[in-house]
This record gives sequence, structure tokens and C-alpha cells, in this order.
Amino acid sequence: MNDYRPTKADRFSFGLWTVGWQGVDPFGVATREPMDPAYAVDKLAELGAYGVTFHDDDLIPFGADDTLRANRITSFRKALDNTGLVVPMATTNLFAHPVFKEGALTANDRDVRRFALRKILRNLDLAAELGATTYVLWGGREGSESAAAKDVAAALDRYKEALDLLCAYVREQGYDIRFALEPKPNEPRGDIFLPTIGHAIAFINELDEPDRVGLNPEVGHEQMAGMSVVHGYAQALWHGKLFHIDLNGQNGPRYDQDFRFGNGDVKSAFLLVDLLERGGYDGPRHFDFKPARTEGEDGVWSSARACMRNYLILAEKARAFRADPEVTEALAAARVDQLAVPTLGEGESLADLRAEEFDLAEASARGAGVEHLDQLALEHLYGIR
Amino acid sequence: MNDYRPTKADRFSFGLWTVGWQGVDPFGVATREPMDPAYAVDKLAELGAYGVTFHDDDLIPFGADDTLRANRITSFRKALDNTGLVVPMATTNLFAHPVFKEGALTANDRDVRRFALRKILRNLDLAAELGATTYVLWGGREGSESAAAKDVAAALDRYKEALDLLCAYVREQGYDIRFALEPKPNEPRGDIFLPTIGHAIAFINELDEPDRVGLNPEVGHEQMAGMSVVHGYAQALWHGKLFHIDLNGQNGPRYDQDFRFGNGDVKSAFLLVDLLERGGYDGPRHFDFKPARTEGEDGVWSSARACMRNYLILAEKARAFRADPEVTEALAAARVDQLAVPTLGEGESLADLRAEEFDLAEASARGAGVEHLDQLALEHLYGIR
Amino acid sequence: MNDYRPTKADRFSFGLWTVGWQGVDPFGVATREPMDPAYAVDKLAELGAYGVTFHDDDLIPFGADDTLRANRITSFRKALDNTGLVVPMATTNLFAHPVFKEGALTANDRDVRRFALRKILRNLDLAAELGATTYVLWGGREGSESAAAKDVAAALDRYKEALDLLCAYVREQGYDIRFALEPKPNEPRGDIFLPTIGHAIAFINELDEPDRVGLNPEVGHEQMAGMSVVHGYAQALWHGKLFHIDLNGQNGPRYDQDFRFGNGDVKSAFLLVDLLERGGYDGPRHFDFKPARTEGEDGVWSSARACMRNYLILAEKARAFRADPEVTEALAAARVDQLAVPTLGEGESLADLRAEEFDLAEASARGAGVEHLDQLALEHLYGIR
Amino acid sequence: MNDYRPTKADRFSFGLWTVGWQGVDPFGVATREPMDPAYAVDKLAELGAYGVTFHDDDLIPFGADDTLRANRITSFRKALDNTGLVVPMATTNLFAHPVFKEGALTANDRDVRRFALRKILRNLDLAAELGATTYVLWGGREGSESAAAKDVAAALDRYKEALDLLCAYVREQGYDIRFALEPKPNEPRGDIFLPTIGHAIAFINELDEPDRVGLNPEVGHEQMAGMSVVHGYAQALWHGKLFHIDLNGQNGPRYDQDFRFGNGDVKSAFLLVDLLERGGYDGPRHFDFKPARTEGEDGVWSSARACMRNYLILAEKARAFRADPEVTEALAAARVDQLAVPTLGEGESLADLRAEEFDLAEASARGAGVEHLDQLALEHLYGIR
Repeated sequence: MNDYRPTKADRFSFGLWTVGWQGVDPFGVATREPMDPAYAVDKLAELGAYGVTFHDDDLIPFGADDTLRANRITSFRKALDNTGLVVPMATTNLFAHPVFKEGALTANDRDVRRFALRKILRNLDLAAELGATTYVLWGGREGSESAAAKDVAAALDRYKEALDLLCAYVREQGYDIRFALEPKPNEPRGDIFLPTIGHAIAFINELDEPDRVGLNPEVGHEQMAGMSVVHGYAQALWHGKLFHIDLNGQNGPRYDQDFRFGNGDVKSAFLLVDLLERGGYDGPRHFDFKPARTEGEDGVWSSARACMRNYLILAEKARAFRADPEVTEALAAARVDQLAVPTLGEGESLADLRAEEFDLAEASARGAGVEHLDQLALEHLYGIR
Repeated sequence: MNDYRPTKADRFSFGLWTVGWQGVDPFGVATREPMDPAYAVDKLAELGAYGVTFHDDDLIPFGADDTLRANRITSFRKALDNTGLVVPMATTNLFAHPVFKEGALTANDRDVRRFALRKILRNLDLAAELGATTYVLWGGREGSESAAAKDVAAALDRYKEALDLLCAYVREQGYDIRFALEPKPNEPRGDIFLPTIGHAIAFINELDEPDRVGLNPEVGHEQMAGMSVVHGYAQALWHGKLFHIDLNGQNGPRYDQDFRFGNGDVKSAFLLVDLLERGGYDGPRHFDFKPARTEGEDGVWSSARACMRNYLILAEKARAFRADPEVTEALAAARVDQLAVPTLGEGESLADLRAEEFDLAEASARGAGVEHLDQLALEHLYGIR
Repeated sequence: MNDYRPTKADRFSFGLWTVGWQGVDPFGVATREPMDPAYAVDKLAELGAYGVTFHDDDLIPFGADDTLRANRITSFRKALDNTGLVVPMATTNLFAHPVFKEGALTANDRDVRRFALRKILRNLDLAAELGATTYVLWGGREGSESAAAKDVAAALDRYKEALDLLCAYVREQGYDIRFALEPKPNEPRGDIFLPTIGHAIAFINELDEPDRVGLNPEVGHEQMAGMSVVHGYAQALWHGKLFHIDLNGQNGPRYDQDFRFGNGDVKSAFLLVDLLERGGYDGPRHFDFKPARTEGEDGVWSSARACMRNYLILAEKARAFRADPEVTEALAAARVDQLAVPTLGEGESLADLRAEEFDLAEASARGAGVEHLDQLALEHLYGIR
Repeated sequence: MNDYRPTKADRFSFGLWTVGWQGVDPFGVATREPMDPAYAVDKLAELGAYGVTFHDDDLIPFGADDTLRANRITSFRKALDNTGLVVPMATTNLFAHPVFKEGALTANDRDVRRFALRKILRNLDLAAELGATTYVLWGGREGSESAAAKDVAAALDRYKEALDLLCAYVREQGYDIRFALEPKPNEPRGDIFLPTIGHAIAFINELDEPDRVGLNPEVGHEQMAGMSVVHGYAQALWHGKLFHIDLNGQNGPRYDQDFRFGNGDVKSAFLLVDLLERGGYDGPRHFDFKPARTEGEDGVWSSARACMRNYLILAEKARAFRADPEVTEALAAARVDQLAVPTLGEGESLADLRAEEFDLAEASARGAGVEHLDQLALEHLYGIR
């Protein structure tokens, strides 16, 4: 029997801010003590993770002096060395401090934009030093509550300027780092720029060095906009832009819930793992979730363990689904494979196509076979096949 | 006193399917008689529209023989000639017939995809003949209810194949036509491909002839995904992809309501008109709405008239908003103009920027001035300034 | 091994309009032929259902003359007799015909309200004759797109008047029938009266004979408003108002999807079955779903079969969940049982309670144990425990 | 010209927590300094408010000793005396402290429930002392993220127990206080009990003293569930349960935005004011909003002023709308007044009604006149009539 115990080969990673979340929400103060980053590293290693990720301020308190900074880095490194955990990704906190209240890279206030750039550059250097190859940018404060108070075209110009500068910097420094934008539709801003996977990919195509920039889509963020996370991640893959992923759970359009992965929309979680395991994405399986505010430390580790466990459970189901002969048959009956065949035949012209006879009534009467196929997927999810 | 009477110079256009909508919905049959296209043209001209748009099947019943087809076109042309109305845009109905139930350009069934292409090509010829310069593609059936029953990457390949073929055809025929994709998140499919403005622009960048393809975003479609329509249209403009627009109204995430323009989210309608009137889009102001199913013919014309009237009212308010000295002052206080200034100074390097002194406390304490500015916008909308 | 084959003891029922749905949606015409009610009865019996339900117009075409009416009833009765299927519930179609476009029992037009009442009364007589004990009222057209065009207080007065008249009629006729209101937030109207379980129960309390009226909540309708279906059904049970249920699936706030039961929000389906199987509701397990429009007749029966199968699968899981000793332990650790203990002790006064010592820090530090317990539920759903 | 300057006769009130909100959100720390309650009272009086409301912890820091408590109360009273401001409502903070993380009156932990009761009782005494006649209960933490971890029936039993105890206490003390429940669908809990106006009214009917308990619905809370705020408030009025109101703004299903009143869904704000001004509610016009986190203190007062100003602007428009002869005509044409006429005539029986002749075709063809009437409403909102 499978005990779904993760190993480093599974490449599971967690943000320091996930297990370290203290439970502050819009209506309540912290319910848990701060967690020492080194302690988090030890515990995550123990649970079977292979990597840990961080915002600058998760590791080094905002405004720390050089000594404190050095101590925090040393202690973190030591924990990494002891456990063998890697740092596949790092990112900048451009949202917590009051200075970013109206934006960071797209703040109306130019001084703030400059400060935001400085903050990123500093942590980029540390990320490179710690071996991170992905640098995430979540523009949580880039947006507005009033479209009257923001020139959107100028904001996108400034966003592009910042990304272009950062790409040039990374290239000049010779860092082996790619950027990954993380879309989100709203919260904490009324409307955030680059609200979905689609908007972010569109934006990237306007950059000076588009190949250096991809996406870090988060399951819950897409679902907050009612988007299909499977369609969205698949489109990102199709564009070659799935650089990194944030796995968690959400119950549709409402506040950002950050449930442990596998919870929330369970069926989408299953079909997303099916997509990821079928190839095209070989980065870390990164969890960006919040252990419920109701929990003590045992609940923190219980939920972190469950994230990985659920991924492994769903991956096993996905393999069984694809290996099931009845599924193969149902896929063929639903003509799913036929979609890979070009619509125009080799050597065929549009004129040929236009001349074709077509039995409209017959084609209209064909059942699509979706209910049966989808039920097979559901039964694999239920674990009864 | 302004009586908000539209003229052809205002470039208002309507789809035949809007005023001609008979009121079939998921729970009810038609409440209005079919409307003759020529009659619709006459009435729209009378109300002050300058253009009319159509799906192939709006003009010529699906499956019509050549005689009927010719008669319908002749009658339509005659109405256009009599009224001086133009046809700025045309499109294909790839959603109503049962044959498209599982998709059209991305149907799993290759025969269906080929039929869909033929249907577009035929109407493209007519569109060119009638002088249309924009050809809209709304892929209402391109999507799935089950991600298990659709290979999304293959679907995007087929979508791209179709667009590439259509672009080549238009080029070869020498048609003065550009394509405009119309995003929608869901309904009638569970999840539709290219669900938002962002996804569609991202997709276009992968085409062989990206310059021939842009967007026809619809207000309500973006709002069904909880998106800011002002941010979305502004991003489309920024990419040079706002080829055509569908104006209507919606109350957030729920079924597609297609209210008359100006109804629904009134504040967004105002700020959208403000955006459009400030430049960058000079195409038709096209209404894609449905007169409520509760209405008789008088309600149809009343709502069509109101679409144009509301646009003119909001445009007047937008001009007044931009001309108000208190607004100018509030915009400056909110540093809205500062966003157009590059973050890095001319000749400045990142090293210079990194060396800069910064008074964090002072910058953090600056109020953004958004509440005041937004209230001014609201008061212009209310008409009390 | 359980093959999840339904029997009449499982009390599964289907509406004629479910398997008979022809696939008309806002953007497409029918994709399937009409289904003869007698045929539907035969097939449903074959699949293992015990009951069938109907709107008047499902059985007898609107406007049928007396002969056709009699023939349709005879044929239906014969099928019931042959199969042993019962009719536990019936209802009236007050939404499809144009006459109801602005409402039925709450139409502004008094003539329409009177016609709606007549239509209900006629079908009530038939329902009683066929042995139905529940009569559902779904007010799909009771509502508005414009709050300016409806006097809500008057609408609720008229709704109450209608219900009071219907209750009196049933009492006077001696029918063994209770009414069940079916809430829905919107679609086909912009906003429907009695939009949720809560609003409908509140309304019932104002009726002359509140005991004759309860609810028929639909899974998807509650989820369209982002409501927890488990909380909602549990509150209805708490009020003694869960008279009948409509089981199906939905993906959050969007158009009414009517997926087969078990699809959509899978976790909620599981916890809902857990609630229903633990007691308090002993009526039919009634499915109000739509086989996807993409399907031929095989897809219709495949999806109908799956509704029942999924219920049985989830019921088995629910029993296993409640029988799992680790779950018992986790429930206790989460103090779930402590909620049944009155907050004030027996014989205790508020003065006693106020005098109590309390270790705030200790109580604040207690973890709630929810993540672990919820994960156990998830693993039962996954079928890996 | 109307300058929309509020006076005490307008009965505008604000919560201390609104203008005093420091800007902590899920992703950011405070951006504004704490505000002294006495200062808030002075400023609100200056702006034209007549009342101020408070949570216990707004006035007296949680855990304050008796001296601090006494000082804070004295200082607050003095400010009230100086300004003439009244305290029409008070409430308890049962959500911020970690002890309430899993609930307050419905926490699984009985000790917590008892502490919650004590906290309410203490502040009830103060509320009575300060002259409040409404006591609001917002159960922000009453709910769950996992339906598996909460026995909903037991939770409702405990909720009822608490309310029954509180009603008895108020009665015994002879306080002139009524309770008002404030519904909310979610945030900060995944699903909150009594999520809408409807659920709360249904619940109240099960209490021992239902007449002592009504509602304090909040505009944004209903809109987070996609509910029509006009329908909802009107239903609450119909039940005689609109005891108090929370006015603010929101953009549909997403996180709780708490915009200033008049912002967000502008049209609903207008029609809500129209409803309130037409009678049935004569309590305070209470604002429960948050000045945007981007703002300094000037933005706080600017937004507070705008709440009142917008109410006055919309009230003026509502009066003009009702006085407009074209509106009167359009209301009659839409038969809005006909809804007040009982469906059954005086002395008429159902048998009479059933015997009536009815011209179905004629009735079906009548247009409802909604588009015209709704457009008139919109034009009054726009201020162009």
C-alpha cells in the first residue's frame, strides 16, 4: 500500500511565509508566534520537502541592520546545509510596508517606484547567492480601487520599464535567474494589474527580453476570477511560460483563501495534477498556502504534510486514469485524440476544403461522449476504480 | 440643453441580433416575433445609428438555398443604400446549430472544424463585399465542461491553425479586413478558451500574422469574470489590440445579462467612456445588448435608443470631468501624472538609483488622495458638478 | 465489491425535464429529440430509480386539448403501473410561456397572476390524483431586472396571498400534499425573489399555514450565490423545512450549470450526502440536472445513471468516514461534540457565568484541530482510507 | 443650489472603527496612526453626523484595567456632551482576539462561548448606560472552513441559546435595547452562519423573543453573495426586521471592500436610498465603511464626508424620480401599481377565478415597459432630468 510519503525527488517546496503565517487577517490579529526560518527549514526537510522559498522580509526583518541581516542569512544557510534543502525561488515583499500602499513598481509616486526597484535588486543578489533560479514578482499592490486615480497605460509602461531593467541587470550580472510573474485579480487592491494568466503572458510579449520572463500562476488566484485552472495552466504551458507554480486551494470568487493543496475545488486539483504529470512542466511543486488561522503548530505541520500527500495521491490517481483501458476507449469515443490532427490535410488547400461534401445531419447527431468520460475521471478521483 | 441625439458622426452601430433578439432563454421560448433585417436597418437609421453588423445566420437563415440567400442580401443592401447605414463589422454564427455543440474551430470532431472553417470563409466573402473591415470571432462553443474531455494544447494549436488560415485567406483575397477575437469566460460552455482580454492577446502573439488580429472585448463578458473593464480595455489599447468593442451592461459574476449600455455597473460605464473618449480607439461604438425579454417592440427601440443616449451622456460627463479645475488639482495631488515619468532618470544607471537616499517614513506617510479624486469622478457621474 | 447499483429502496427520483432536456440554451437550439414521458419512465425504472416527477407542461403540452391531455395522462399512468415507479412530487411550469415573462404569481399584470394560479390549481389536482405528496414551486420568473419596476413589498404580499390560497385549497380538498419552495438567486431573472434557502424560510413564517410549506433547495442554486450547500441544507433541516431536495452540480457563481450530481464541487457533494445520510431527511433523493447538451441519448442515460451511482459512492464514503476511529478521535480533538453542550450549565445563571474565572491565554493557544480532521474527510473522499 | 451639507436631522452615524481604521489588511500593516475616540467624535460632529457607534474594543482596549476603562469612558462621554452626538448603537468585538479564532457564540470550545457571552454582557451594560437602543451582533467568526468540523444544527442551537439569554437579560434589566444581527456570507471564515438577510430572519423566528431581534444588513455583505441589496432590504422591511443599517459600497463577489457609501454599485445605492426614503425605516443612516488604506487623515475625513454627501445627493434624486410625471406615467404603463391589488377579488372564490376567460395571446403580447422605466431611473441617477 502506498503511504504517499514525499521524497526530495518529488521536488516539493514551501514558502517560509506559508508555514510561518501567523494568522493576521482583516478582522483578527496573529494567533501563532513568529517562526524562525531555520526552524521552518528543519521541519520542512523532516516532512520530505526538497526546497524552501522566501520573500526578503520573511528572512530578514524589514529595516534590519547589517549585523542582523548577516546573522539571519547565516542561520538560514546553515539550516539549508544541514538539511540539504535548496532554494529554487525567491521573491520580494512589495506589499506589506505602508510605503507600498498605493503601488510599488507602478505607484503613482516615483520615489516609491525607485525604492521598490532597490528592494528587488538587493534581494535578487541574495537569491542568486542562495542558488535560486526563479525570481517571482507578485504585484499585490499594483492596481487601484479607482480607475480614475490611475493611468493604466502609464502603469503598464512603468511595469515594463521595471521588468526590462531587471532583465538587463540579471543578464549583466550573469545570474542564472528567470522572472516569474504571479497574476491575481484583486485583493488587497480593488483591481490588480495583470489579473490573470492571460494578461500576464500578453504583457510579457511586450518586454525587451520576453524569454527571461514567464509565470508563477497560483491555483486560488485564477479561481478567484472563476477561471478554469486546468485551461489556464495548459495555456501557460502552450506559450512556454509555465516557469513556476503556486499550488493551493480556493472556493471560487471570494476572498483569497489559500487552503492547503487538494482542498477546495477537488476535481480541478485532480485534473491539474494530471496535466502537470503528463509533462511540459518540470519545476518544483511549490505550495503557497496558509495553514488555517484556527490551528496551533500541529495544524501547521499537518496541513503542510497534507499538501504534499494530496499531490502524491492525485498523481497516483492521474496515472491510473491514463492507464485505464476504459478511459482510453472513452477518450477515443469522445474523439479527444482527433484534436491533434490538423484541420487542413497535408497538401490540402482551403479551396479543397470548401469543396468538401458534408453530412450535416449525421455530424450533428453524433454524441460527444463527454458525460461518460468525465464520470470515469470522477470515479478515479473517488478511488473506486 | 443637450438632448443627446445621436448622429452618424457618433459612429454608433448595432448587431442585427440585438434588436432582433426574440427572447429565447434557458427557461423560456421567444416572446417577440422575428424581425426583418431590412426593417431593423430602417429603424436603426431612424434612431441615429451609422452602422449595422451581422452574423451570417442573422441575415440569411441557416441552410437557405441560393435564391433565398440572394433575396435576403438584396433586400439588406437596399435598406443600407436607402439609409446610408454602413456595415463596419460582420461575424459568423458558430454556436447555435447542434453541429457546433462540442466546439467549432476547436471541436474534437475534425469534420466539424472543417465545416466551421467553410462557414466562416463564405461569410467573409460576403463581409468583404458589404464593406466590412472588421470580422469578429466569438468562440462561444470553444471550450469544455470537462477538462478531461479536451486536450487544451491541441485545442490552441487548432485555434491557431484556423486563425493562420483565415489571415492567409484574407491576405490572398486582398480583403481590407482585420479579425477581432471576442473573449468570454463561460456560458454557453462551462469554460471557454481565451476567457479574457488577456488570454486572447497572449494567444494572438503566437499567430503567423499577429498584426491582422486584435480584440473585440465585451463589457459584460469581462465583468462576468469580475474583471475591471477599464483596466482591461486600457491594456488592450496599450497592446494596440482594441480593434472593435461590444458595449453593454452586466451585474458581475452570473449569467450573461447583456443589459443596454449604461445600465449595470454604471460607474465602470462612465470611466470606460472616459477612457475611450480620451483617444486611442477610433472605431465604431458598437452595442451588443439584448432588449429585455419582458419587452414588446417599443421596449426594443427604447432600449436601443438608450444605449446611444447613455453613451452621449457619459461622454459629456467625461469631458466635464477632465475640464474641471478641481479635478486637475486632485489628479496632481494624487500624483497621477507622475506615473508617466520614467522611474529611471535619463542617463541614470541602476547603480545610481541604488545609491539614492530615501526618506522612508516621509514617503510612507504621504496620503494618496484617491478618495477625494474618486469622489469628484462620482459627482460628475451624478451630474451635480 | 460494491457495484453501486441503485434499487427502489434508495428512493432516487428524476424530473421528466431532466432526461428529457433537449439542449436549448441561450445561444443554441435543441440538440436532442423530444422524449416521450412513458419512455422516460421505462428507462428510469430500468436504471433503478423509484420515482419520477414532472411539470404540467412536461407531461401535457401547453394548450393541449382534453383528448390529448387524457391520452398523455393515460400513457404516463400505464408506464407507472408497468414499472412500479411512483410520483413523489409534481410542479408547475410558470416560466417558459411568454405570458410569464414579467412574473407569474408576482407579475405586475394581475391577469397573469390569475392565470398562473389557475395553472397551478389544475396541476395540483392531477398531482394529487397521481399520488404526489410534495408540490414544488420554483418562481423562476418572480423577480426583476430593475428594482425600479417592481414594488418588492407588494410582490411579497402577492406571493403570500398565492401561497395562502393554495394551502387553503389543498386543505379543503383534503389532499395529502405539502408545498416546497425552490430558491434561486438569479437566471432567468436578474434578481429572483426568495433567492436563497434563508429568504424562503423567512417568507414561509409569514404565511397563514406555515406548516404546509417547506423547501426544495437545489445544490447548484445555492452555489450560484456562493453559499455553502452543507450549511444551507443543515439550516433548512434545523427549521424542519427540508421537505424535498434537488441534487445536481455547479461550479460557483456563473450561469446555472445543472451538472449531474457528484460533479462540480465534489467535496461539498460528499459532505452534503454525509449530512443527508446522518438523518433528518427521509424524502426522495431527487436529481434536477441536465445531461450535457453535447450528448446523444447514450450520454443522457450515462449521466442519469451516474447521478445515482455517485450518490451511492458518496454515501458509502460518508459511512466509512463516520466509522473511522481516527475520525472519532479527530472530532473529539476538534471539540466538535462539545457544541451540543449548552453554553449555560443546568441551573446556572448568567450571574454565575459572569463570575467565572477564565484562562484567556490558555484558551487562545488551543489549536482547533480542523486541518487534520478536514484532511481525514478529504482522504475518505479520495478513497484512500 | 443644494450643497448637500448634512445636519443632525439627517441622522447620519459612523462607527468609531470606520474613521479609526488603521489600514491593516491581509497583506499589509497599518498605514495610519490609532485615532482617539474623543477626537473622532469631535470631527464627526464637525462634519455633520448626529451619532457615533462602537465595539467595546474600539473604545476600551481589550484587557484594559478598570482605571483605563473608566478614563476612556469619561473622555468619550465628555466628547459626546460637548458635541451633542448620540450613541444610537453599540456592538461587541467577537472576532479580533485569537481566542475567537474558531468562533465565539458558536465556538466548538464551550469555554470560549462562555467568554463571548461575558464580553457581550459587559458591553451591553455600557451600551445601555450610553443610551444605545440597538445592539448589533456580527458573528464574523461564527462559521467554518470545513463543514466536517462543525455540527451546524448544534451551532444554530447554541446561537439561539445565546440570543435567548441575551434577550432575557435585556428584558430583566429593563434596557430599552433591541438586537440586530448582521449577516455576511464569508470572510474572515470560509462560510459564516446566517450568511444573508434571509437566513438571519429565518433564524430569528425560532427565538424565544423574536420581537427583540431584527437585522442590521450591510450593503456590501449582501453584494458579496451577488444579492440585490434593494430586494434584500425590502424583504427585511416587509418582515418588520430592518432595525438598523450599514451603508457602504462593494464591487460584487470578492473580498469585503467597505467602500464609502455611493461608490461601487452606484445604481443599487440610488435605488436603495429611494427605498429607504419612501418610508418604513426611520433609524440612523449608519455608515460602516473603511477609508482606503492608501489615504492619510485628510482622505479619512474626505471619505466620511462623501458618505453623507452621497446619501443626500441620492435622496434628492430619489425624490425627483418619484415626482417626475413621466415616471408616474411609466410606472403605470409597467403596471407597477397593479401589484398592490390582491390577485383574488374581494368576495371572489378560487372557483370563480378558475372559471374566468383569459385572452392568453393578448396578455402574452403586452410589453412590460421596464426598459423605459428603468432608463428614467438611470437618467435621474445621471442627473440629466
